[in-house]
Amino acid sequence: MKLLQDQIIQNGKVLSENVLKVDTFLNHQIDPVLMQAIGNEFAARYKDTGITKILTIESSGIAPSVFAGLTLGVPVVFARKRKSLTLSDNLYTSKVHSFTKGETNDISVSKDFINHEDTVLIIDDFLANGQAVLGLLDILNQAEAKTAGVGIVIEKGFQPGGNLIREKGIRVDSLANIKSLANGKVEFFEEETVR
Amino acid sequence: MKLLQDQIIQNGKVLSENVLKVDTFLNHQIDPVLMQAIGNEFAARYKDTGITKILTIESSGIAPSVFAGLTLGVPVVFARKRKSLTLSDNLYTSKVHSFTKGETNDISVSKDFINHEDTVLIIDDFLANGQAVLGLLDILNQAEAKTAGVGIVIEKGFQPGGNLIREKGIRVDSLANIKSLANGKVEFFEEETVR
Repeated sequence: MKLLQDQIIQNGKVLSENVLKVDTFLNHQIDPVLMQAIGNEFAARYKDTGITKILTIESSGIAPSVFAGLTLGVPVVFARKRKSLTLSDNLYTSKVHSFTKGETNDISVSKDFINHEDTVLIIDDFLANGQAVLGLLDILNQAEAKTAGVGIVIEKGFQPGGNLIREKGIRVDSLANIKSLANGKVEFFEEETVR
Repeated sequence: MKLLQDQIIQNGKVLSENVLKVDTFLNHQIDPVLMQAIGNEFAARYKDTGITKILTIESSGIAPSVFAGLTLGVPVVFARKRKSLTLSDNLYTSKVHSFTKGETNDISVSKDFINHEDTVLIIDDFLANGQAVLGLLDILNQAEAKTAGVGIVIEKGFQPGGNLIREKGIRVDSLANIKSLANGKVEFFEEETVR
């Protein structure tokens, strides 16, 4: 997605060979115009797949998800990263290890909102080691819901997450797929020609 | 806001005299159509106040904020509830006590995104004891930014937060203001006639 790649080039900060900071438009400050374009792109790619719900994870997945949900006409459910006292025991839970933060969190989704009749599009901001998406897939598995695919804003294609998920036969749509962050420079894989 | 009040009556669950659960459309599952209407309502109320940024707090404030930001043509910044390893020391921080969760968290905002030239609209999902909004106001104070007002989706008007903030001379717009949750029933204050 050209608009997104341009923003990454213009405003992303390469902090190391593994870390890209996009706090100016995605992870801390949010650009609503870009998020709408991203949400609409996911919606266009998945419009004929019978999506009934979008599943994301707090916090940076929420903005692109609500725009995709608006266009697809479906609700968005966000997994919580730890149990809240106002949520009951009626939960699907999974464990997610964050390599960035060096910690493992429980993620949870209420059983009220996803069940075996749902066809779900997972959306997240980053795909690197794939742990968050694997946790969300685990939750969909527990719910016996159908997974239509995984929409990712920025994939770090030089890390193993994308392959881990594609090898399971799951469709992954990354709107920007980074080949390398070497020498302080962002290099993208060519955009997929087949959608 | 009639649409919101109807949703609260239809889908909110009164768990006690103090706790209203709105997990079906705001705090866990998100209704994008309602969030767009809420965001547009905040935008309409603040369109002539020179807003340059919206400030919210993860996670449930993000959805209404991005729609308000889209309509007002301004970025959204969300305060983080704890420091992330990929954020630097370049932060405004404040302490926020959550009575619901029984814990105190640091909230933080990068100095890169709010400064003395900004006029900021704070948006949050709930206003009860006011601790989160007071923390956000503290951050705006540190940034020497101008506060245009506070947009709240649901105020629990029988709790002290709203008055605490209004007494400081700060404008608060609550789209639904709850008078009482007694006897398992949601009762609203009359909608303000003066905006």
